[in-house]
Amino acid sequence: VTDGLTALVAGAGAGDRGAVARLVTVLERGGPPASEVAGLLPSATPATQIVGVTGAPGAGKSTLIGRMLEVLVADGRRPAVLAVDPSSSLTGGAVLGDRVRLQDGAASSAYVRSMATRGQQGGLAAAVPSTLRLLAHAGFDPVIIETTGVGQAEVDIAGEADTTVLVTAPGWGDGIQAIKAGLLELADVLVVNKADLPGAADVRRELDGMLDLGRISGLADRVGSPRAAVVMTDARQGRGADALIDAVDAHRAWLESSGHGASHRARRAEIEASALVTARVRDAVDRVLSGPAGRGIVGGLADGSVTPATAADRILTALPGVLHGA
Amino acid sequence: VTDGLTALVAGAGAGDRGAVARLVTVLERGGPPASEVAGLLPSATPATQIVGVTGAPGAGKSTLIGRMLEVLVADGRRPAVLAVDPSSSLTGGAVLGDRVRLQDGAASSAYVRSMATRGQQGGLAAAVPSTLRLLAHAGFDPVIIETTGVGQAEVDIAGEADTTVLVTAPGWGDGIQAIKAGLLELADVLVVNKADLPGAADVRRELDGMLDLGRISGLADRVGSPRAAVVMTDARQGRGADALIDAVDAHRAWLESSGHGASHRARRAEIEASALVTARVRDAVDRVLSGPAGRGIVGGLADGSVTPATAADRILTALPGVLHGA
Repeated sequence: VTDGLTALVAGAGAGDRGAVARLVTVLERGGPPASEVAGLLPSATPATQIVGVTGAPGAGKSTLIGRMLEVLVADGRRPAVLAVDPSSSLTGGAVLGDRVRLQDGAASSAYVRSMATRGQQGGLAAAVPSTLRLLAHAGFDPVIIETTGVGQAEVDIAGEADTTVLVTAPGWGDGIQAIKAGLLELADVLVVNKADLPGAADVRRELDGMLDLGRISGLADRVGSPRAAVVMTDARQGRGADALIDAVDAHRAWLESSGHGASHRARRAEIEASALVTARVRDAVDRVLSGPAGRGIVGGLADGSVTPATAADRILTALPGVLHGA
Repeated sequence: VTDGLTALVAGAGAGDRGAVARLVTVLERGGPPASEVAGLLPSATPATQIVGVTGAPGAGKSTLIGRMLEVLVADGRRPAVLAVDPSSSLTGGAVLGDRVRLQDGAASSAYVRSMATRGQQGGLAAAVPSTLRLLAHAGFDPVIIETTGVGQAEVDIAGEADTTVLVTAPGWGDGIQAIKAGLLELADVLVVNKADLPGAADVRRELDGMLDLGRISGLADRVGSPRAAVVMTDARQGRGADALIDAVDAHRAWLESSGHGASHRARRAEIEASALVTARVRDAVDRVLSGPAGRGIVGGLADGSVTPATAADRILTALPGVLHGA
């Protein structure tokens, strides 16, 4: 297996899209092969900007991302999209990425991939940061990560991304919702999509007002950050995507000049290291529970003679042998 | 600390609501005190039914739960609600539970509590199952757990609950959405709330049709389960809550007569044991990273000389000493 994975990682580094696709699948499935791929990938390169795009379902994220890809490809860049769809574990397949439509020209330069939690909870916590490093290794830049529902998903987009884009649309009170959820502190770029709909200008005014207010009161997480840009788009008609890319590029320039880009990369590496530890511990816990010590623990939990806390003690005692013996 | 926690757990067992409230806070904060509380709680009692209530925001879950509490209290029962609000880590406080309104009579017998992720990702994975055991220990039954967005949250309500209630409402295509998301397989009771609105009968017809279809094709997760009940409610006007409680009680009777209740409790205990292991490993990882070995790891991650996978190896090597030395 190792030889095959080493060759695939080398192939991905040379821009082989088939190799990239197979490695993403390995990372998505988790387990020892995923840890092995993570071990073969180099550290994140400074060049790559990770752009998180989030917002409520129906705000038009996927259409907007399709337009962003067109602008980026027309600029001669090689963007990638990783659509993380935690809810689709129930349907057995990811759907977010399927909605990103590419023009013929963009399809050959851009790479779009969905990831879903296929197994247990937390499965994507390690897979997503490793996949971001893989896509950077394969020369994609920027790498756009799309999720629904900031703060609800197990993948914390604001923790992963260098630049966070929050997409709202008029008519749902999304602007207000975003503010209530504290998202304003997380967003580097705010998009009012469906700008052709009535009320779009009101949403913009409202967001601008809140941003100015936040600037005065000093939002904790944004100390030293530039005020978030607000961009109007009409993704269906293709309007505003260029202005959005300009705003994302301006944030990138600030990240690198201020040194915040380096601290984002360091934080992302720490998150990934912790997630890899958790993933390997989980695999080891499964091995403990399916081994001879596990039978007594599982039986005791079932008949109530062993409490969950006692079971946790016993698993932790057996863990080092399993972790370091394998 | 231990003496205080032991006294609180004893107090909770005697029905002291103040003790319950303080212990939930300890569990919510996590860390060693939470593990200690989990260790002091007895195994789950067969008597307690865990009822998961979920559905899209705006379907009227909180109002409906308020009505369920009124019916339960009028029956002389002592229900509790645990509202899990993963998104409110951003606002620093839980909001779901605040929306459950209680009549004066219900307020003295029912217990309502919100929980939010205050710290890192995954913090509630252990806290929620431990809290469910705490509420059962304090004599509450049923314990209703409310979440938004099945499959997206880190707390998997269908894994935790004995009986899963999915709340829909006409007008949003929620019925269809639920089916798309595969929720039909998870729901034991389907509620069409806002039954006064136009289209409610259509939603019901649609859900019934899908359920009958699923019955023929044999939905994988529901083999051996009774067909889900569909209940029409108008929570604002207080209509249908009694029928909903009847459906929940009927499911409970089936759980106990079929033996599925016991397997639910066993699965919940396993989920909690695994989550407690993960929580303690996370605490240990934090200690490794803030210790002498951690400086080299964190520095190497920051300057790119150490990859996340290598960092994970080093943390795993240091882990047993920290886990078992403390």
